[in-house]
Amino acid sequence: MAWRKHMNLSQAKLKQAASLMEKHGLDCWIVEFARETGNRPDPLGYLVGTTVTWPSAFLLNRDGRSVAIVGSGDAGQVESAGVWDEVRGYVSSPRQELVKLLDEWRPNKIGVTWSQDDDTSDGITLGMYRMLESILEGTDHSSRLAQAGALAGEVRRRKLPDEVEGITSTIATTERIFQRVEGILRPGITARQLQQEVQRWVRESGSGFAWEERMNPLVDFGPLGAPQGHTLPGDTALRPGHLIHIDLGLIQNGFASDLQRTWYWLRDGEKGAPEPVSKTFAATLAAMDAGMAALRPGNAGHDVDAASRQAVMDHGFPEPQFAFGHHVGRVAHDGAGVLGPRWERYGKAPDVPVEPGNVFAVEMELEAPEYGLVGLEEQAIVDNDGARYMSNSQRELWLLPRKHR
Amino acid sequence: MAWRKHMNLSQAKLKQAASLMEKHGLDCWIVEFARETGNRPDPLGYLVGTTVTWPSAFLLNRDGRSVAIVGSGDAGQVESAGVWDEVRGYVSSPRQELVKLLDEWRPNKIGVTWSQDDDTSDGITLGMYRMLESILEGTDHSSRLAQAGALAGEVRRRKLPDEVEGITSTIATTERIFQRVEGILRPGITARQLQQEVQRWVRESGSGFAWEERMNPLVDFGPLGAPQGHTLPGDTALRPGHLIHIDLGLIQNGFASDLQRTWYWLRDGEKGAPEPVSKTFAATLAAMDAGMAALRPGNAGHDVDAASRQAVMDHGFPEPQFAFGHHVGRVAHDGAGVLGPRWERYGKAPDVPVEPGNVFAVEMELEAPEYGLVGLEEQAIVDNDGARYMSNSQRELWLLPRKHR
Repeated sequence: MAWRKHMNLSQAKLKQAASLMEKHGLDCWIVEFARETGNRPDPLGYLVGTTVTWPSAFLLNRDGRSVAIVGSGDAGQVESAGVWDEVRGYVSSPRQELVKLLDEWRPNKIGVTWSQDDDTSDGITLGMYRMLESILEGTDHSSRLAQAGALAGEVRRRKLPDEVEGITSTIATTERIFQRVEGILRPGITARQLQQEVQRWVRESGSGFAWEERMNPLVDFGPLGAPQGHTLPGDTALRPGHLIHIDLGLIQNGFASDLQRTWYWLRDGEKGAPEPVSKTFAATLAAMDAGMAALRPGNAGHDVDAASRQAVMDHGFPEPQFAFGHHVGRVAHDGAGVLGPRWERYGKAPDVPVEPGNVFAVEMELEAPEYGLVGLEEQAIVDNDGARYMSNSQRELWLLPRKHR
Repeated sequence: MAWRKHMNLSQAKLKQAASLMEKHGLDCWIVEFARETGNRPDPLGYLVGTTVTWPSAFLLNRDGRSVAIVGSGDAGQVESAGVWDEVRGYVSSPRQELVKLLDEWRPNKIGVTWSQDDDTSDGITLGMYRMLESILEGTDHSSRLAQAGALAGEVRRRKLPDEVEGITSTIATTERIFQRVEGILRPGITARQLQQEVQRWVRESGSGFAWEERMNPLVDFGPLGAPQGHTLPGDTALRPGHLIHIDLGLIQNGFASDLQRTWYWLRDGEKGAPEPVSKTFAATLAAMDAGMAALRPGNAGHDVDAASRQAVMDHGFPEPQFAFGHHVGRVAHDGAGVLGPRWERYGKAPDVPVEPGNVFAVEMELEAPEYGLVGLEEQAIVDNDGARYMSNSQRELWLLPRKHR
């Protein structure tokens, strides 16, 4: 049943894509032109619905017709996926079927999925693009290739209700795992031990990991060892006076989560967190609130980031070296726009406007030098007026052990 | 320990690559220029040793020096992977560090990893290639970009002893699983039930699947339903008079296997397989032997394929619609050359000469129309004089139930 639903969702997304093609000036979209996608997943694979071995072309016409041109060995499974209106098999080369289809459809602009700014809309490899050029060489179609990265991005980030439901469900599983963490936190446990226990719970839940396991979850106990950023969870043991920070992301039924939570372990006699810790938490929360207030249609990603970034600096903390937010969907970093500053490494992604139906991870991490890292990360969905949290947002620093509260 | 060994192997492969650069006319090789490789593995990742989130450049000089230019958030884990001599972090863009490094190294030819013919040497996406061009625009280096796909392929297919050992070990695990299959084969079991049981054994062994699980293993019982190729294992129940065909591939410690085995279930009173089945098996075996005899240095891939293909037709069977063999290594279809016909979909891959140190999967599948599919697939390693099987090759059709033999 889950599989069937997934297939219907691919078709619904292709329908959504067809309705957006005119806006992007495209008559036809080569959604995927790839090979061996079982070894190397294509970021458009969620629209295709299956992997392929041989060079395969998946084309969508702006009237909604869809055709897959695949090697004969792949045809059976592409048909059984039930996403594409027509599956045309080939033996020696996709050339003939591809040119024939374009002759039938007569598009003025043929979109190819690539993007300099967004990895999840950067579908085609350079080698496959050269193959496409060589197939179309000498035909009327060769001069009609256009960039479809922006369309791919819009389809990806405008979530349909079934996609929102999928993400919501993964968030719920992730939060249940966070709830279990307090039960095993105790002075002496190492970051690596905590990571292994959490990973056991994740596997029991039947979920996968949204990024590689040696960093999932990230676990930080106490003062940071490295000059910046995280280190892999190791032998650092939890001690009173430590901040406890966990960054965990799951994949469940093809949808991701990406959440951070923070605790503080009280020292003997402490009734609350020491002032540097409280101040850091307050600044982190203020940055989250400022960013959320700016997260609404009409603002660009960099506007949202700037609001959050300003709040950090207003609280006397150094400027963060990362973006305030990123899309969440099929993967934890779902691309197609970022709530980040206009730094070159983000390309044009910070300029993408916030739209209704977008789902973001919003996050802030600030250091309390003697105590460790405060990190908060939530999932938020945008509607016509603003944004609301999909996760049960952390509004106060959790103090351990609980008896002291 | 396994991890440490893996890291040394990446360094050994980079050393091997540096020694091959002069032959390929390259002074510097941008092994990987990629982002978010946790979501989308780069086929060169086995040389890089870790995944990255931000746009990252991994460069090898022909004198063996290696430098990673990575986002500050990725620097810690790239350093801890211990593969790259130097790790240079950046915050806003890799531009400055990349141009600076090329200014230091002053290469005449800068290899970029892409290939039209070989997916495992087709590393860079079109978007990342455009980013690279834009970074180098206006510098002396912009006109020095060259294609490094052939180098990437040669490094990939010339296996070091540790790589051969890894593949050998995965083959042994796969063969142990094949041995268990006879214990559960019985009339009435469905292809799907058999698949699920085999998958349980694979998981118990701690191995992964070399291709997607709904097709791994492929299981064919009796006459083929589809006009060509496989269907997903379903409700077809095993009956006397059926051929039983299984195609299974594992990944263990980063190395793949890809093997096929065939049985026949005797009907009441049968002492051996009926003539059409015996003839089909004999033709399959003859095609394997003919291909293996041609698998030696000096021959091109298409020569080896032709020998096997001719044997099939000499036995009165229709010409196969697939290649006789492919490399096996990090993945089941390890690319960089194919033992196949000069069909356009294979590009120039069939022209690649066979070399000592190559590891191939060689295979033949022929249909006995009333009975099903005979399929044999072995792994073979090439030395200076020819090739030998690494797997315990199937030389006769296995008859079930065993008491009848």
